Amino acid sequence: MNRQAIRRLFADVRAGKTSPDEAVERLRHLPFEDLGFAKVDHHRTLRAGMPEVVFGAGKTPAQVMSIFKRLAQHGTNVLATRATEEQFSSVQQVVPQAKYESVARAIVLRRDGKRYGKGLITVVSAGTSDIPVAEEAAVTVEVMGSAVKRIYDVGVAGIHRLLAHAPLISKSRVVIVCAGMEGALPSVVGGLVGVPVIAVPTSIGYGAAFQGLAALLGMMNSCASNVSVVNIDNGFGAGYVASLINRL
Amino acid sequence: MNRQAIRRLFADVRAGKTSPDEAVERLRHLPFEDLGFAKVDHHRTLRAGMPEVVFGAGKTPAQVMSIFKRLAQHGTNVLATRATEEQFSSVQQVVPQAKYESVARAIVLRRDGKRYGKGLITVVSAGTSDIPVAEEAAVTVEVMGSAVKRIYDVGVAGIHRLLAHAPLISKSRVVIVCAGMEGALPSVVGGLVGVPVIAVPTSIGYGAAFQGLAALLGMMNSCASNVSVVNIDNGFGAGYVASLINRL
Amino acid sequence: MNRQAIRRLFADVRAGKTSPDEAVERLRHLPFEDLGFAKVDHHRTLRAGMPEVVFGAGKTPAQVMSIFKRLAQHGTNVLATRATEEQFSSVQQVVPQAKYESVARAIVLRRDGKRYGKGLITVVSAGTSDIPVAEEAAVTVEVMGSAVKRIYDVGVAGIHRLLAHAPLISKSRVVIVCAGMEGALPSVVGGLVGVPVIAVPTSIGYGAAFQGLAALLGMMNSCASNVSVVNIDNGFGAGYVASLINRL
Amino acid sequence: MNRQAIRRLFADVRAGKTSPDEAVERLRHLPFEDLGFAKVDHHRTLRAGMPEVVFGAGKTPAQVMSIFKRLAQHGTNVLATRATEEQFSSVQQVVPQAKYESVARAIVLRRDGKRYGKGLITVVSAGTSDIPVAEEAAVTVEVMGSAVKRIYDVGVAGIHRLLAHAPLISKSRVVIVCAGMEGALPSVVGGLVGVPVIAVPTSIGYGAAFQGLAALLGMMNSCASNVSVVNIDNGFGAGYVASLINRL
Amino acid sequence: MNRQAIRRLFADVRAGKTSPDEAVERLRHLPFEDLGFAKVDHHRTLRAGMPEVVFGAGKTPAQVMSIFKRLAQHGTNVLATRATEEQFSSVQQVVPQAKYESVARAIVLRRDGKRYGKGLITVVSAGTSDIPVAEEAAVTVEVMGSAVKRIYDVGVAGIHRLLAHAPLISKSRVVIVCAGMEGALPSVVGGLVGVPVIAVPTSIGYGAAFQGLAALLGMMNSCASNVSVVNIDNGFGAGYVASLINRL
Amino acid sequence: MNRQAIRRLFADVRAGKTSPDEAVERLRHLPFEDLGFAKVDHHRTLRAGMPEVVFGAGKTPAQVMSIFKRLAQHGTNVLATRATEEQFSSVQQVVPQAKYESVARAIVLRRDGKRYGKGLITVVSAGTSDIPVAEEAAVTVEVMGSAVKRIYDVGVAGIHRLLAHAPLISKSRVVIVCAGMEGALPSVVGGLVGVPVIAVPTSIGYGAAFQGLAALLGMMNSCASNVSVVNIDNGFGAGYVASLINRL
Amino acid sequence: MNRQAIRRLFADVRAGKTSPDEAVERLRHLPFEDLGFAKVDHHRTLRAGMPEVVFGAGKTPAQVMSIFKRLAQHGTNVLATRATEEQFSSVQQVVPQAKYESVARAIVLRRDGKRYGKGLITVVSAGTSDIPVAEEAAVTVEVMGSAVKRIYDVGVAGIHRLLAHAPLISKSRVVIVCAGMEGALPSVVGGLVGVPVIAVPTSIGYGAAFQGLAALLGMMNSCASNVSVVNIDNGFGAGYVASLINRL
Amino acid sequence: MNRQAIRRLFADVRAGKTSPDEAVERLRHLPFEDLGFAKVDHHRTLRAGMPEVVFGAGKTPAQVMSIFKRLAQHGTNVLATRATEEQFSSVQQVVPQAKYESVARAIVLRRDGKRYGKGLITVVSAGTSDIPVAEEAAVTVEVMGSAVKRIYDVGVAGIHRLLAHAPLISKSRVVIVCAGMEGALPSVVGGLVGVPVIAVPTSIGYGAAFQGLAALLGMMNSCASNVSVVNIDNGFGAGYVASLINRL
Repeated sequence: MNRQAIRRLFADVRAGKTSPDEAVERLRHLPFEDLGFAKVDHHRTLRAGMPEVVFGAGKTPAQVMSIFKRLAQHGTNVLATRATEEQFSSVQQVVPQAKYESVARAIVLRRDGKRYGKGLITVVSAGTSDIPVAEEAAVTVEVMGSAVKRIYDVGVAGIHRLLAHAPLISKSRVVIVCAGMEGALPSVVGGLVGVPVIAVPTSIGYGAAFQGLAALLGMMNSCASNVSVVNIDNGFGAGYVASLINRL
Repeated sequence: MNRQAIRRLFADVRAGKTSPDEAVERLRHLPFEDLGFAKVDHHRTLRAGMPEVVFGAGKTPAQVMSIFKRLAQHGTNVLATRATEEQFSSVQQVVPQAKYESVARAIVLRRDGKRYGKGLITVVSAGTSDIPVAEEAAVTVEVMGSAVKRIYDVGVAGIHRLLAHAPLISKSRVVIVCAGMEGALPSVVGGLVGVPVIAVPTSIGYGAAFQGLAALLGMMNSCASNVSVVNIDNGFGAGYVASLINRL
Repeated sequence: MNRQAIRRLFADVRAGKTSPDEAVERLRHLPFEDLGFAKVDHHRTLRAGMPEVVFGAGKTPAQVMSIFKRLAQHGTNVLATRATEEQFSSVQQVVPQAKYESVARAIVLRRDGKRYGKGLITVVSAGTSDIPVAEEAAVTVEVMGSAVKRIYDVGVAGIHRLLAHAPLISKSRVVIVCAGMEGALPSVVGGLVGVPVIAVPTSIGYGAAFQGLAALLGMMNSCASNVSVVNIDNGFGAGYVASLINRL
Repeated sequence: MNRQAIRRLFADVRAGKTSPDEAVERLRHLPFEDLGFAKVDHHRTLRAGMPEVVFGAGKTPAQVMSIFKRLAQHGTNVLATRATEEQFSSVQQVVPQAKYESVARAIVLRRDGKRYGKGLITVVSAGTSDIPVAEEAAVTVEVMGSAVKRIYDVGVAGIHRLLAHAPLISKSRVVIVCAGMEGALPSVVGGLVGVPVIAVPTSIGYGAAFQGLAALLGMMNSCASNVSVVNIDNGFGAGYVASLINRL
Repeated sequence: MNRQAIRRLFADVRAGKTSPDEAVERLRHLPFEDLGFAKVDHHRTLRAGMPEVVFGAGKTPAQVMSIFKRLAQHGTNVLATRATEEQFSSVQQVVPQAKYESVARAIVLRRDGKRYGKGLITVVSAGTSDIPVAEEAAVTVEVMGSAVKRIYDVGVAGIHRLLAHAPLISKSRVVIVCAGMEGALPSVVGGLVGVPVIAVPTSIGYGAAFQGLAALLGMMNSCASNVSVVNIDNGFGAGYVASLINRL
Repeated sequence: MNRQAIRRLFADVRAGKTSPDEAVERLRHLPFEDLGFAKVDHHRTLRAGMPEVVFGAGKTPAQVMSIFKRLAQHGTNVLATRATEEQFSSVQQVVPQAKYESVARAIVLRRDGKRYGKGLITVVSAGTSDIPVAEEAAVTVEVMGSAVKRIYDVGVAGIHRLLAHAPLISKSRVVIVCAGMEGALPSVVGGLVGVPVIAVPTSIGYGAAFQGLAALLGMMNSCASNVSVVNIDNGFGAGYVASLINRL
Repeated sequence: MNRQAIRRLFADVRAGKTSPDEAVERLRHLPFEDLGFAKVDHHRTLRAGMPEVVFGAGKTPAQVMSIFKRLAQHGTNVLATRATEEQFSSVQQVVPQAKYESVARAIVLRRDGKRYGKGLITVVSAGTSDIPVAEEAAVTVEVMGSAVKRIYDVGVAGIHRLLAHAPLISKSRVVIVCAGMEGALPSVVGGLVGVPVIAVPTSIGYGAAFQGLAALLGMMNSCASNVSVVNIDNGFGAGYVASLINRL
Repeated sequence: MNRQAIRRLFADVRAGKTSPDEAVERLRHLPFEDLGFAKVDHHRTLRAGMPEVVFGAGKTPAQVMSIFKRLAQHGTNVLATRATEEQFSSVQQVVPQAKYESVARAIVLRRDGKRYGKGLITVVSAGTSDIPVAEEAAVTVEVMGSAVKRIYDVGVAGIHRLLAHAPLISKSRVVIVCAGMEGALPSVVGGLVGVPVIAVPTSIGYGAAFQGLAALLGMMNSCASNVSVVNIDNGFGAGYVASLINRL
């Protein structure tokens, strides 16, 4: 089902081959299929180079396998986030070319290697514990066809480490910044560059970090005007938004 | 002080006309000037077409006037957000060309009318009470040189009103969505378009709206992957981020 | 003990067969019996077609078995919510006709198949992870004698999927909407129909979802006036309220 | 614009008098009109007896007057909630028949006196301070065409006062319960009746009442299964939902 | 060490047998002994009939055994709260007369059976899941020498069950009320009696119960003036305060 | 209406002079009267020496006057809490003997000077800003017939000031402790005495005091077992509970 | 009353001139005097150079005047924080040498100009709106006898502005950092220096700043190990702690 | 790499042996090395006697081993906090001289036994459950070269126990106070001494302790002016700050 098919449907209506009601009916049934437990949405594939994505957390290996297999039939890249090794083992049985990115906790099926993004996306993280979230962002960016650079462990308490990387960061078209604890890094990075910064609060920290709430509030109140924020630990969302921007 | 001046400074060092220490010293003192109560930062003006901005809330008319006047001397557009009519009266005495956008609560000095943004930015708002925040975003977009369209009062409980505007929204390069109460609109808009959506929770609502917290949490948890979020009522931030994206 | 028995008791008092004090005493001891750890309340069975209900969470299999068996002696339908397979195994030993609804996590004993509800109740859910809560609602509706339709995985970020089902939803007398994350679905559904909508926030999501708090706040602030809300993950409560409305 | 008009439009399409595209275009522009600051939605009037409603808080008297006047032209009842006396004075100039319900803080225009609700709706409130919210609910019920009884100041700490009214409450088809502080009243009322109870937490109380949060949380956790909840102080919402139920 | 000993010490000072400094020194070292990991406080035993108490949660069986044994040497009743069966097994080895109250999760050593309380203390609980907390309160009351009556499973949604017990409750000198979920029971009980009510919020419930926060806030805002509140799940504290009151 | 009247009513039923139904009817209508906006409850006056109480906050002077006058007709002491001078002026016109306690913000009508409490109640406060709350407690205690001592401005950061008063505090039968900020005082006082301590968190403080929340949480977690807590700023509740205890 | 006096008192006891009880009694009455509404504590003045301090917020001009006058009689510096101009006018009438620091909102009486601190204390603030809090800290430092440098408006989004001041900051013995919004500045400063950093969250910001909560949480989670935190807006506390450290 | 090396580098630049760009490049690469998963920062070792520190929580034994080994090569003391026995086993294989402090949950490598602190640091804790946090602070102090005294189990409800230790506490140059539950101990200790107090809220407690939030808020609002606060359970931070102060 693609744009051509939709246009043809409307042409049929105009030509009297199909009644408007039938057209509505066919249109309604086309965009998704019923797998029993989830309606897989193919609409996103209308846009070239957009991957199919499934969120692995809370699903059984069998469910992930079933959904992944179905998505793989559309010929695009496929990405399963928050995926366990156990889920990967199941997927691998039916989609042998799939790979497991263990740090990013992602199952990736790469078939479309085209470069859709125009410039560089840099992923910056504050501490080593933030790396899994940063990697989820980086892998998402790769799957969506943009070049990515990783700059990890450059927290604000050692500002010279971050500044050493300032020239590289300045070359980016979009910057993703992952930080837990006080979540201050996006403000500093935001002040160093003139491009959009996507901030990802992470649940790293303890005590008054309150599972990422401190970092989230900090980033929402960033004094750098070029910062916008996604959900706690949402590396995928940051990668997705950054990729969309980079494709513009 | 501009890029040429900085390059010349480094050339002088290389040529031995200036010692590195002196260069560092001069560089350090250049970017800001001391007005007594605030160090005005001109670094942002290094980037062509970027306006000077001052946040009006909590400042006296005299302070806003003083800062605005100083900023106006750099030849760029100048924007004072969260500004009162009283502050505008003071500004107008020293910068007569300044205009007051009363709904957006902004003082605007437009001198650079160049179009820096490549496409259209649409500002969508859920209710009539969200309009001041939406207007702050829209005015920011205009001052930063992008074309803007406004689509107001299209909350999710009357989904047909939003859908009627879907074709227009789809033509946007970036979409800004302002909503208070349950903050659901960005998710719906996010699902309608394939471009970045900047969500602005507003403090509109009562009771369990908790001054925008409900909307903020809703937007952070958006099931649309192309949504990122700025602070409650931060129309300026949304306009700023959207403009940066549109200039890419 | 039923209404007839109560009327007879008062007649006895009037006739002098029983003193008022004795009547009060008998009345006080009649409505519940002491199982040692819980006073089972039979008052609800005074209303025809109302099931007996036990909340399984936090109870041992032996406790659930004991309570379920007792309730089963009243001849009505019996429902155990938040029940584990282990609890079901115990119940099955003493009430062989009981069935286990694994997705809804419910043990059901159906003996009264009469249709008490006058119209259709539709259960709508946003994502596949919300299905257990939605199923708890749907099973409750069935046990209480109403017709139910399920429309799952129609989250607001893919509004076309929801709209495809709008005609069916419009035929409902009551609609139950289950959603986690930003909890936006009830507002959209509420705008599509002119009947009462019972919203159930679910604990689905991560990060700033805060175990359903984001969805709860979102639903409390719904801009659709026909929405009322029950507790997070309380599918049973939604099914119960919807059934009561449908019996009116 | 009514259902007949919509059917006629589709008939025109079928008959070839109107192209599908024109039909979509006309449909899109029909349901609302642009007043400049708010798109008034007439869709709700498709359902007989439903009033037009405007939320007064945060609007100027001139805005309320303008919207109220427009709504009044549709011939239905009109209700302005959270309205001030000042707003009423403005409205009265253009709609002389409008009345001000000062305790409920509502402007009411009654033209349709038909009884749409089938049974009685009772509004119960815990304390005297909860009465404005309770009255907003009661007035909404009246405007929407249901019979209403008020039982005020029957908080749970004097349970005999509530029980004295139990027979009357039991005759209701729907019960609305307004309570601040600990918000316990809906649970007790819920246990006394077998019909739906709409609970309204109020912002009454001090200290740990946290502007209605304590009451809201209490009601969400009600141990009575027939209780659903609307926003803090949302008497209108409760009256609206109760009226819809009573019209079934 | 008892009051006589302290008086004797001061007499010695006055008589010159002991210097003030020595007296201060002896006094300072007397009240507690160093077990290496905890300073056991015997001051409380100065008051006749007061038990020694140890909080078991988070301590190893060996630690509980060691502390319990030491406390047992003072001849008073000893109570270990939040104790596991495993901790009990260790204690039993060194204090064979100790008993384990499994529902209350308490290890009890009863040696002083004297009745110190003047009247009856009644422990009321809302649901069966609240019973462990209620039992902790009841066992504390018994260990501290007061008569106790238990009235369990009388939640407010079935008010007739509570009222059936009103005469018994009315005979109490102090009432302890344990309730989770909405925590409404103390207000109702408080209205039925003219004596102090000690409210214990429990962590029973799910979703918006937030581990007892909803019940805690509800009880803090009780509209009954004779209610005061202890910590969530703090059955011991309620029993302790009630016992002190009953001993007056 | 008093106990004698109720007994007589039941005797009439037994003697056949009154039918049970009539008796129920009369009983139902007796305990309160309708003032139009509030049902004044006289049941509390069944207990000798208990004052009539009205909460002044949020009521108009006319409402307070009307309620106060009615309550004054029952011959008991009358107390209006959270009352303004303006409310007092109105009350004074109809009840000239009423007095205004300005620090406690209370209107008091003292007619019953009998000493109902058996011992001394001490009111301790941490800072000078806590005094209004402490005075509300002290005045309540006096009106309810107990002797009261005030010990103010003895916060825990100057522990010697508190200890200087330890002998007096130790003579109390009940202690009320009012504290804002960190709310630590009740724990220290609780450790000094062997009697019940009623803790009152106050809204005094700024920043992370969060209007009394910090003090409330502190007191709920008191490591002294003889502490129970009432609502933030609820001096009346503390005085009421302490008086009840002291009357036992 | 000073240390000598206390030693003399104990000598008198030893010499038999004073009984221990009399000594305790005299000691108890010495440290504070009763002004009717507050017990002024002179104990702090035992330490040379420590100022007398009164918190002005919530006190009447007459109360501040009375306390200030009394404190002024001890010959030390006197500081009234959170003081209004109106309070200053009253104070000035009785203590003409007192000065008003309007930005810091402090009344200062300087008589002891001795330098007690050994090194420099630097006060750094993020934005111009944080200056009142920073000034409160700076004035406190001055009154307590330390040298102070102010570096204002150096927020993290313009990191070059902060780094330009790094050499000066590095010369400090203690650094105070005031910041609102995301509160990130203390972490960056903490990483630049090897001395203690006292962080002061301010209530500056809007929306998700939640009156300083975001900044407070950020600072509590600082990734710089040399940071400790005081209450929101508590410039005085920061200045006090920093001064104590600098006097070591 | 040390200060001498940095000075030499600048001399080389001045002498023309190294271009400024090369110098910047070398400087940038010197301070940290890339281990693949973490950039170990050696800058802190520029300050004599400062230990290398690694946070163990969330790292694998192999990661801790790898980082610890690397840090051990710099000749300073090394401290791994929040370390498990399993992590220690791995470390011990490569650094045999490392010791495990089981109560403090710390791996310690002591090579520099020099006393850097000038006075005594006392660590005070409220309850036995707070000891692990207190020990983390104490071990940090020792590793950083200060003398430390431990005073444990002196909670405020037994104030005499704390006062018995007052003379020792008074001899301290800095005091660390660890407390959970209501977190009141720092205020009392703060009032007893004239030196800086570092408060550590612990996550000890249950119910309304909310994992240390109650203690944190209490300490932020301390009425003692010499108290500053670190994160919940952050014994390391407290020890670090106290050591820095003691080295001044």
